Amino acid sequence: MAATRWYKYPLRVRYQETDQMGVVYHANYLNWFEIGRTEFIREAGMTYRLLEEKGLLLPVIEAEVKFRMPARYDDTVMIYTRVVQFSSIKIQFESQIRRWEENPEYEQMLNSDCAGVEPEGELLVHGTTNHIWLNRSWKPVRIDKEAPELIILLKSVQKVN
Amino acid sequence: MAATRWYKYPLRVRYQETDQMGVVYHANYLNWFEIGRTEFIREAGMTYRLLEEKGLLLPVIEAEVKFRMPARYDDTVMIYTRVVQFSSIKIQFESQIRRWEENPEYEQMLNSDCAGVEPEGELLVHGTTNHIWLNRSWKPVRIDKEAPELIILLKSVQKVN
Amino acid sequence: MAATRWYKYPLRVRYQETDQMGVVYHANYLNWFEIGRTEFIREAGMTYRLLEEKGLLLPVIEAEVKFRMPARYDDTVMIYTRVVQFSSIKIQFESQIRRWEENPEYEQMLNSDCAGVEPEGELLVHGTTNHIWLNRSWKPVRIDKEAPELIILLKSVQKVN
Amino acid sequence: MAATRWYKYPLRVRYQETDQMGVVYHANYLNWFEIGRTEFIREAGMTYRLLEEKGLLLPVIEAEVKFRMPARYDDTVMIYTRVVQFSSIKIQFESQIRRWEENPEYEQMLNSDCAGVEPEGELLVHGTTNHIWLNRSWKPVRIDKEAPELIILLKSVQKVN
Repeated sequence: MAATRWYKYPLRVRYQETDQMGVVYHANYLNWFEIGRTEFIREAGMTYRLLEEKGLLLPVIEAEVKFRMPARYDDTVMIYTRVVQFSSIKIQFESQIRRWEENPEYEQMLNSDCAGVEPEGELLVHGTTNHIWLNRSWKPVRIDKEAPELIILLKSVQKVN
Repeated sequence: MAATRWYKYPLRVRYQETDQMGVVYHANYLNWFEIGRTEFIREAGMTYRLLEEKGLLLPVIEAEVKFRMPARYDDTVMIYTRVVQFSSIKIQFESQIRRWEENPEYEQMLNSDCAGVEPEGELLVHGTTNHIWLNRSWKPVRIDKEAPELIILLKSVQKVN
Repeated sequence: MAATRWYKYPLRVRYQETDQMGVVYHANYLNWFEIGRTEFIREAGMTYRLLEEKGLLLPVIEAEVKFRMPARYDDTVMIYTRVVQFSSIKIQFESQIRRWEENPEYEQMLNSDCAGVEPEGELLVHGTTNHIWLNRSWKPVRIDKEAPELIILLKSVQKVN
Repeated sequence: MAATRWYKYPLRVRYQETDQMGVVYHANYLNWFEIGRTEFIREAGMTYRLLEEKGLLLPVIEAEVKFRMPARYDDTVMIYTRVVQFSSIKIQFESQIRRWEENPEYEQMLNSDCAGVEPEGELLVHGTTNHIWLNRSWKPVRIDKEAPELIILLKSVQKVN
């Protein structure tokens, strides 16, 4: 299946996220990837919170991350997220963290429609995460049976070339 | 009621716990206080994990923290914890974070019986936390009814002057 | 001196900030207080990042926090921050964390001028933090000498009754 | 070059490390990997703290993590760490997180010599991290020039088959 469009979500780097190297501690990028996935799902028209309330969990089973440049305190970074592939039992996300300069254009883009854009800004960190669908007892489930509306949503945001 | 004896628990400062000031990020001390409470309960003969499995929660409702000196990466700190007062519905803990120099005596004390000692080492951070007992629905419960063995344990570790 | 006006800053609760009680882990509120202070300083016309680059540090020396109700994953919370008192050597902030329902009015207020408002929304957690000004060698400094513009800024945002 | 021996380091899972799924939040395993590396270097006869004080940084440039089973609050986990390969400019670590049951044997092994063992316990998470040596200005450095003693240490802990 084709990858979906990119969704973007802005973040201000927190003081707590830095370490004594003066940069963002590396494990935090995995946290940001996850924030990106949460907002991707919201933008697509669903919420991860609702999925969990329905008894569905989507844990990470594999992660690959490449760290090119560090983010720093008070930087504005943009999290780009898209689904690379998905089936009824698993899903793969791709994530990019990019630094944005603050300027008038930035303000404008923050408020613009955030779907379907091509990633812009200085690439800092990127990677992929693989997930499987589980129920509350940590048993695999088929999402086409448990939440077919999600399959429809994902298809609706696929990029048409 | 009289305060209990002090219990101590050692900790090595993690890189992730530092911030770009080159010291431990201040919110982490609340986390260490909690680790101290967990180990206090274990030393007293119970586990907080077991209490939660029985449906009891012990959230913090108030915290007061004084930060005198910062801990740094790779420091060995000692968490001292005692119960200052408790009833069937609430409990107050007192916590101290002290820095320890690494030396042979240190190794020895780490392995010695850790109850009833007087706090030693350079005082870095200290404070108190107040807690109430709740059930899984976040309603207050009386611990003398829900876990009377805990009251007995707490009385058994009270300090006799 | 009179307290300043309140500044507000919105936050979406992250999955990573929850714990197995199903709510936000209590130490994170101290982190949110700090984000509120960072944004307070920015709104007042300065940045904490710049202050640090000038060699000034503003560590917390005391914190008091009252936890009334927990925030939960995906909640929208509003951080309210104001300066209660300040001198040339120290400063006290007051912070409130309030939950906001998402509705059209919410969207509107997020984008409205965020200074001088009275706190609104369900009060979850509140407290105060005391700070002193230090230089890079962790020695106390007088802010009226090191950054007099900051004193002017703080006076300019004081509330006139 | 041959891989080094495995070093092990025990950890008690903290409440703060859990999330509302009731398990350890996935980004924390990267943090544990790093704790394992810190203790590996200490066991080998050096400290990472000292290396940083000498002006050397060892940031992660790539990470691959496979999550098989989650760790839970209060579990005792063992972090296994070894160097898979190294040169004068880069180094690759392999990490395993395994759950240990608490039993008398456990207590004994915790205190036994911890080098050269084969990993034991239920495998939860494993992965590799790649690092390069940088100086304080974030420029690559050759470790054979900046800290030749480290090369000697690494060779001394290589496993001879």
